[in-house]
Amino acid sequence: MSLQTKLEKYAKIAVKMGANVQPGQLLVISAQVRDYEFVRLCVKEAYAAGAGYVQVDWSDEMNSLQTYMNVDTETLCDIPQWMYDQRKWAQDNGCCFLHIGSGTPGLMKEVDPAKMQAIQIASGKKFMPLQNYTMANEGQWSIVALPSAGWAKKVFPDKEEEEAMECLMDAILTAVRVQEDNDPVAEWKQHTSNLRKYCSWLNEQNFRELHFTNGLGTDLHVGLVKDHIWCGGNEDTVKGIEFNPNMPTEEVFCMPEKTGVYGKVVASLPLSYAGKLIEGFSLTFENGKVVSYHADKEEESLKNLVEFDEGSSYLGEVALISYDSPISNMGILFYNTLFDENASCHLALGRAYPMNVKGGTEMSREQLAQAGANDSMTHVDFMFGTRDMHIEGIKQDGTTVTVFDNGNFVI
Amino acid sequence: MSLQTKLEKYAKIAVKMGANVQPGQLLVISAQVRDYEFVRLCVKEAYAAGAGYVQVDWSDEMNSLQTYMNVDTETLCDIPQWMYDQRKWAQDNGCCFLHIGSGTPGLMKEVDPAKMQAIQIASGKKFMPLQNYTMANEGQWSIVALPSAGWAKKVFPDKEEEEAMECLMDAILTAVRVQEDNDPVAEWKQHTSNLRKYCSWLNEQNFRELHFTNGLGTDLHVGLVKDHIWCGGNEDTVKGIEFNPNMPTEEVFCMPEKTGVYGKVVASLPLSYAGKLIEGFSLTFENGKVVSYHADKEEESLKNLVEFDEGSSYLGEVALISYDSPISNMGILFYNTLFDENASCHLALGRAYPMNVKGGTEMSREQLAQAGANDSMTHVDFMFGTRDMHIEGIKQDGTTVTVFDNGNFVI
Repeated sequence: MSLQTKLEKYAKIAVKMGANVQPGQLLVISAQVRDYEFVRLCVKEAYAAGAGYVQVDWSDEMNSLQTYMNVDTETLCDIPQWMYDQRKWAQDNGCCFLHIGSGTPGLMKEVDPAKMQAIQIASGKKFMPLQNYTMANEGQWSIVALPSAGWAKKVFPDKEEEEAMECLMDAILTAVRVQEDNDPVAEWKQHTSNLRKYCSWLNEQNFRELHFTNGLGTDLHVGLVKDHIWCGGNEDTVKGIEFNPNMPTEEVFCMPEKTGVYGKVVASLPLSYAGKLIEGFSLTFENGKVVSYHADKEEESLKNLVEFDEGSSYLGEVALISYDSPISNMGILFYNTLFDENASCHLALGRAYPMNVKGGTEMSREQLAQAGANDSMTHVDFMFGTRDMHIEGIKQDGTTVTVFDNGNFVI
Repeated sequence: MSLQTKLEKYAKIAVKMGANVQPGQLLVISAQVRDYEFVRLCVKEAYAAGAGYVQVDWSDEMNSLQTYMNVDTETLCDIPQWMYDQRKWAQDNGCCFLHIGSGTPGLMKEVDPAKMQAIQIASGKKFMPLQNYTMANEGQWSIVALPSAGWAKKVFPDKEEEEAMECLMDAILTAVRVQEDNDPVAEWKQHTSNLRKYCSWLNEQNFRELHFTNGLGTDLHVGLVKDHIWCGGNEDTVKGIEFNPNMPTEEVFCMPEKTGVYGKVVASLPLSYAGKLIEGFSLTFENGKVVSYHADKEEESLKNLVEFDEGSSYLGEVALISYDSPISNMGILFYNTLFDENASCHLALGRAYPMNVKGGTEMSREQLAQAGANDSMTHVDFMFGTRDMHIEGIKQDGTTVTVFDNGNFVI
């Protein structure tokens, strides 16, 4: 099967299984300009699926880099109102979102971290009122990925650029279950049904807390909110439309009790954040809050993440993935959260997903806070799963059940 | 010299001679996504020139085609307010514009002409209040071109796509005076100074009317407004910043008296309009207004152009170009107005340029109308110059002076 045919299949599942655009609905695709050929396939699939309108929100990270290097912080932080209005218009029209990511890890490494931080905060504040649309599943949204030269060379540094691109494309297609002669739609249905089984089991257990330990030095207690809900695989919007927020996805995830986290977590993979690559880092929590941290590389970026706002020093997500998962079995470090988070248990600093607590998508921000949910302008995943991860679940009555042993689900 | 080096030179003159972005100024580049590598060169040149910020307004004509084919007219005509606000924001910030065109002639040929017309009118109405910024040179603006596969195959139908692209690229670079080992900036200064000499001579003559005749059947009288000004080559903004609106440019142009045009004009080249290619057409004028028209191909599009609004059936521009000009000497039909208009005398239906009458850039729309200027939401050039074009200038006292003979300036 030619690459073109595979890409057509990929575009189809991105539009139909991912964003699942409905007849008459507005689809907003955000993508890098270099990926225009794949975007055209997605636009075609979207209209074939009956989309009412497809709007593409283009960007070019190479121009962004030039802009960050040449323009002063004040100008960069003064986000024009029409950018907000553009997104608001889409949401007011009941849109769904498809994001096609192909960013180069560490591209912004030469940019002053304080400048990056200021831009992130300005953007976070400006778009805060629009964050709920995706966080609370008011409309469908999906994130998929394509290789770029810079990313491929980071993943396969010993290969020539062209070969590296091909290898990364293969790895991505494997991860999203697009193969020769398979029916990826059927595969995805089977797969998400499996993930939902894990969720059911975890929801039945109704753990009060999870205790993570491994040889890397992680010894972390993560309390879970009362009436929590484990989610995974496809999700439903508040109007009941199924979609897959991430392609690939291998995780089941839940809501930590904001103040119920303590101990130390050691990251098992680098984190690509705001154009920087943070490596060899750990965080220590008390009463839910990060009280100390360290990174071998880009510690200032880690500091910026933790100190982004009040909520970015608390957890908003805990996610479980068997070490023996399809993505992790490829043995590739992707330097990209969409893939690495699905190869490894992970946590997120920042805002919790309302859907992870009973009735959450109908709660106000205040009600969510009362339920124990963390709030923030940001939400950043980082990976800490290992081959020897052990997880003990502590039930409401204090009894314990082993959830993970040697990196994998026990059930 | 490698193509890359030539493209860097081209980007430099587009940014510095074309838009002439000033230190601290906002530059808005509009471009097709497939041209992202050239855009990056322009962004780099702009920041090197001290641009305060570069914003890129991306589009993809292939997605536009899919959208026009699949979305109903009502939705397409409902232009979101944020699009208007985006352009207004740029103008309020004193921006300059650089448009990089590479459109495929006739791409929209399958789209219902009535639909195209409705979209053009809706867009014209929506953006009408913002039209003056470029029409009256409130800020600098420039239009340049790059080859695209579809355009190149139209110009060189017998060549393979890759070779056609190379030939068109060469032709464009020749037309914009980017050559091996030349200094295109110096070339442009010399060239625009030559064009200004023609303007000076024409302004001294102060003709009441021009009379065009040739063997193709053109016999047209074009009255010129009182206190008209011939312009050509580079121009100045109202703040006195030099720029080149078109690259290439070979024309000197003036303002017809709205009601002072009569006779028949036969087009000498096809016209690419709203995605359609209008061929073999002629227009007959009485008291300035088109009273009849004909086209061998796409006559409905010609009808849509003439009937776009009240002003689109009157002339807004008359431009003189020697038949023996660098672009016309290449002997290439470009199917693109930016090039073909610079190979041939042309006229424009629609709005006149305020700068073509004394004090015009400070006049209100009403004052311009009183001065004899045509007004419209549109401005579309079409070519009628030929190898045998004869132009007789009629002075205010009725005496005549030959301006063109056998297709060329006599002076």
